[in-house]
Amino acid sequence: MSNNNRGLLYLIGLGPGGRAQRTHQADLALDQSEVILGYRRYLALLGPRPPEQQLIASELTEEMHRAEQAVALAASGKVVALVSSGDVGIYGMAGVVFEELRRRGWQPGESPDIAVIPGVSAAQAAAALLGAPLMHDFACVSLSDLLTPWELIARRLAAAAQADFVICLYNPASQKRTWQLTEAHRILLRHKDPRTPVGIVTNAYRQEQRIVLTSLGKMLEHPVNMFTTIIIGNAETFVLGDRMITPRGYPKG
Amino acid sequence: MSNNNRGLLYLIGLGPGGRAQRTHQADLALDQSEVILGYRRYLALLGPRPPEQQLIASELTEEMHRAEQAVALAASGKVVALVSSGDVGIYGMAGVVFEELRRRGWQPGESPDIAVIPGVSAAQAAAALLGAPLMHDFACVSLSDLLTPWELIARRLAAAAQADFVICLYNPASQKRTWQLTEAHRILLRHKDPRTPVGIVTNAYRQEQRIVLTSLGKMLEHPVNMFTTIIIGNAETFVLGDRMITPRGYPKG
Repeated sequence: MSNNNRGLLYLIGLGPGGRAQRTHQADLALDQSEVILGYRRYLALLGPRPPEQQLIASELTEEMHRAEQAVALAASGKVVALVSSGDVGIYGMAGVVFEELRRRGWQPGESPDIAVIPGVSAAQAAAALLGAPLMHDFACVSLSDLLTPWELIARRLAAAAQADFVICLYNPASQKRTWQLTEAHRILLRHKDPRTPVGIVTNAYRQEQRIVLTSLGKMLEHPVNMFTTIIIGNAETFVLGDRMITPRGYPKG
Repeated sequence: MSNNNRGLLYLIGLGPGGRAQRTHQADLALDQSEVILGYRRYLALLGPRPPEQQLIASELTEEMHRAEQAVALAASGKVVALVSSGDVGIYGMAGVVFEELRRRGWQPGESPDIAVIPGVSAAQAAAALLGAPLMHDFACVSLSDLLTPWELIARRLAAAAQADFVICLYNPASQKRTWQLTEAHRILLRHKDPRTPVGIVTNAYRQEQRIVLTSLGKMLEHPVNMFTTIIIGNAETFVLGDRMITPRGYPKG
């Protein structure tokens, strides 16, 4: 589909896993695309694709290059899909692409058109598997300090804990980043009870899915990696069997 | 499908609008259900259903009764779906059901089984239509003080603004609740620049969808209602044409 020489770039959130957690809109956009770009491991989530579709796999660290390539291909008149796992607009590729478009002096109305297609993000997948921990106000914080000063991350953790937000930790650790979770834990314990329920979900809705229900005090006793999301409850969050639930309100007091 | 007398309750997030934004898993669960319960307006999003399915529509305020009814039907051995718009686990019906299960003394392993199926939440739908405002740490705050003391909501707004979170406001106003948004605006302006980009999205992916891109200083000049979500940027959020983008990092400095 050549779209009359006017390119189109779909930014697609694949959700946590395979087809079951994708939206119909995501699949429609994938089917319409001439080229699909993404991190090698996320392209594998798509399953077999029609032979006429070009797939361009790249490594996790090549995000800037992937965005440039996707924009250049779409600007040349093609229909292109750039995929992220989870929601492409939450710590995903959407912002990277818009930053690249700004560098190119792109304005809406010019080629390519950009369509963002949201998907189920990692915290939502983890929450669904844990029960209902996100029923009240929550804050998402990435522990990756590659592009953000640690001081700001630490300030956010303290602020969110002090104000009794449920807290979702993205990117808690990688092979190279290991001290951040320990430090985050220390900050959270200053403001939250060690008995606060904590859910640790790794590879949600994928092979090797692992769900751990523990407490803030014992949070560091469980392994985490770059496919882990951690959800820390608020003062009202309770455990019911193997589920973690945050009530939708506070007791009248 | 009677599931061997053991009931099953699906808690399903429908996403923002029609079928396009639903996941395949949500549709599969809807198709397997003997009874579907939900707020009248959300059941309408489902479109026509097979005649053998029983639909039980209720009013928005009847959440407790709806949860009790869904649990009772599923406990009797039926396959039941209870739907929320957006993500059923984010300010949706999932928590209400688990609170009802706790009251009944339910434990996992007993009937009914409970399966939570996540969906695209209102903030994600708004973000996709606005561009990419949720690319960095964000906090979701509901301005509804029906079940939460306003003092806590105010404390959360201040904490999130001080720590430079992107902020998503759910339930900014209803016919009865009108002063909360004005008060929230006052709190946010104490800590955020009035030029901070703000996106106001009403009825995302539905008929009468309305998208407004403005600034924190001018936020109150635009109409909002109970189908509106507001996204307030962080210190780095920028506007590119008609899009609102939060960069994925902070400048090194």
